[in-house]
Amino acid sequence: MKIEPRTLKGFRDFLPGEAKKRQYVINTLKEVFSEFGFEPLETPALEYEDILLGKYGEEGDKLLYRFTDNGDRRVALRYDQTVPLARVVAQYAPRGDAGQNEISFPFKRYQIQPVWRAENTQKGRFREFLQCDADIIGADTALADAEIIALAVTSLKKLGFENFKVLINDRESLQFSANGIQFAPEQNLQIVRAIDKLKKIGKEGVIAELQEKGFTVSEISSVFETIETAIPSVRLTEVLQILETLKIESKYVEFSPTLARGLDYYTGLIMEAEIAEYPAGSVLGGGRYNKLIGMFSGNDIAAVGFAFGFDRLLEALNELNLFPRELASTQVLVTIFSPELLNKSLEIVSLLRTNNISTELYLDENAKMDKQLKYADKKQIPYVVIIGPEEAENGEVALKNLKTREQNRIPKETLPNAIS
Amino acid sequence: MKIEPRTLKGFRDFLPGEAKKRQYVINTLKEVFSEFGFEPLETPALEYEDILLGKYGEEGDKLLYRFTDNGDRRVALRYDQTVPLARVVAQYAPRGDAGQNEISFPFKRYQIQPVWRAENTQKGRFREFLQCDADIIGADTALADAEIIALAVTSLKKLGFENFKVLINDRESLQFSANGIQFAPEQNLQIVRAIDKLKKIGKEGVIAELQEKGFTVSEISSVFETIETAIPSVRLTEVLQILETLKIESKYVEFSPTLARGLDYYTGLIMEAEIAEYPAGSVLGGGRYNKLIGMFSGNDIAAVGFAFGFDRLLEALNELNLFPRELASTQVLVTIFSPELLNKSLEIVSLLRTNNISTELYLDENAKMDKQLKYADKKQIPYVVIIGPEEAENGEVALKNLKTREQNRIPKETLPNAIS
Repeated sequence: MKIEPRTLKGFRDFLPGEAKKRQYVINTLKEVFSEFGFEPLETPALEYEDILLGKYGEEGDKLLYRFTDNGDRRVALRYDQTVPLARVVAQYAPRGDAGQNEISFPFKRYQIQPVWRAENTQKGRFREFLQCDADIIGADTALADAEIIALAVTSLKKLGFENFKVLINDRESLQFSANGIQFAPEQNLQIVRAIDKLKKIGKEGVIAELQEKGFTVSEISSVFETIETAIPSVRLTEVLQILETLKIESKYVEFSPTLARGLDYYTGLIMEAEIAEYPAGSVLGGGRYNKLIGMFSGNDIAAVGFAFGFDRLLEALNELNLFPRELASTQVLVTIFSPELLNKSLEIVSLLRTNNISTELYLDENAKMDKQLKYADKKQIPYVVIIGPEEAENGEVALKNLKTREQNRIPKETLPNAIS
Repeated sequence: MKIEPRTLKGFRDFLPGEAKKRQYVINTLKEVFSEFGFEPLETPALEYEDILLGKYGEEGDKLLYRFTDNGDRRVALRYDQTVPLARVVAQYAPRGDAGQNEISFPFKRYQIQPVWRAENTQKGRFREFLQCDADIIGADTALADAEIIALAVTSLKKLGFENFKVLINDRESLQFSANGIQFAPEQNLQIVRAIDKLKKIGKEGVIAELQEKGFTVSEISSVFETIETAIPSVRLTEVLQILETLKIESKYVEFSPTLARGLDYYTGLIMEAEIAEYPAGSVLGGGRYNKLIGMFSGNDIAAVGFAFGFDRLLEALNELNLFPRELASTQVLVTIFSPELLNKSLEIVSLLRTNNISTELYLDENAKMDKQLKYADKKQIPYVVIIGPEEAENGEVALKNLKTREQNRIPKETLPNAIS
């Protein structure tokens, strides 16, 4: 029976061209995260079902990949990295003996792993995608908020973005009132969720949504007055001062009183990042969520952090042409002129690799030179070395630059310098 | 209902200490792989069940994690990286238009992703573990075999191993005969599988196993005579010559006529790596397998490669103490003497980060100095900076080396040089 080679809808192969871009972004972010003292954490792809079930709302439960394993255990695939983080914090909580199997607070961790969600792929969503989180657990200070914002700004700069803004707001400022009376929590959440769509649907749209929910015209105008006259909260003012002293340029951080973020678990700072040339949406979202990480221990545990939208980030880097041109590609292909001259080529490979030059050897001594050059072109290898009979006799090599198509004959000892 | 935070048997959390070691090994290997012109490939965690089922024998089918997804599709979790590679080769085979969605031969790819197997955990096996493969597809040459061996040697050297050997043999040399008559394929495989255990169970053990399978004493002595008088095959001799010209030191590569590798899919070169100080077993295995990658297309496709046993590799590096001491850890913790002096600390953080020094800021301006120093100790941060009132007044900082416990007061401008 012939089986058709194919992938599941919403799942992707990443061939080398794409995989190299992904690795570049991951490595760049890991570098910045480490520079700020964040450390990696890895959790399993499969968890006991009861660890994940009920943590993402009714909608989330439906999107969980879950099944019964061979040992009759109910298991589920990782849906995000926050619930596993909460489990880890409960399971390896600081006990004070500083053992191997313990985390210490503040716990500054990053986590870059795939998650799985049985999403509707018609909405352009993937069922397997990379999450990329950085969080500080156990520090409820303006300093921690500021470090998270500084980390976001530094990461975006390091990736080469220039025209971006990290928008910030304080969820506590989003407590609305009309006629001096605060709205009840459920009503307030309706308002926050409507405002969250301001950029997408405009002021008209928000008004319409609120009217539909039963808010009066005067209540709605109170809400907009609150937003339009808003100033940063005391905490946010402190955060902005810290960022200034840390020399995070103020053009990268903006107080945005209309930033709402619809999720109801934020308890303080909320943040998003926008790139001017990439209008498709925010590439990063996060904030403070002091009521979530304690879900397994039963105590509130302070937490602040953000997640990159990894696919969006890649799309933005692609559109803005910010990937380095030679992405970890081979620098030189050493060709083989003929089986008799194979050893001459092998010697050059050894010489180049000893000089730490990323070198590929063509793997068939009987292949025509034309085929070998085409291989280099396809793999976008910038230089090709050819050692024909004349070059071999004179201790030389021919060095061809595939971009300029220039070819020069040079003494073989000078080759490493000619390339690097 | 309180849910106990716990992980499934055979699945592991990697807290920062362990996760940093894993990343170090992955990064080191990726670096070497790229230097040899190998490129990354990523495939999905979930495949259609029919892609994987029946490819790993009866035993393998039992160990597959498989289930019905929300769309009633039968799916299975990645079990290895070879079958997905075969699928990729069939799905994106070279069509000659050099498009984005195409691979070109020889396809030199590496792949480092987790796989899942419902193994018996009592045997000390994991159900989720990392595989780390490097393969060359589409080149049936001694050059390709030699490049794979050179890559293995260079990888092990780069990780810091010195006392190791890559053992090689040719599967075609393992064709046994008695009284001038070759054994039938099934009998020959029984012999190969018995010899594969030579190191574990000794010559006596192999003889016993062969007798049990019905081989006569004279047949068995023919087998051992063949092994004991074996010389490298023509192909292996060519491979060894290429390695010599590539200046791969001969002490790292050894012809081993008793190396058999029990799997029946090898068609030529077979290889393993042994580290003298790590007797627990081979850290790497592989060879040429020209009949496997074409499973979806129906044609034979040449292939040669190896896989590291990632967990063993980590264990060996641990036992031989080969991990770099300061594994991507923060270099400096900047403490906060008091809330009034916070800004002085923030300025130092900015100064250090501008100088590309990996710097952590203590995140609570009200914490006692003692607690801050303990935090640095726990995270094994080598340097701590303290700016008290006197230091602040004189434009100085106190720099404490946590290993030597030495503390010096220095002008703040000189701090970046004092650390790096």
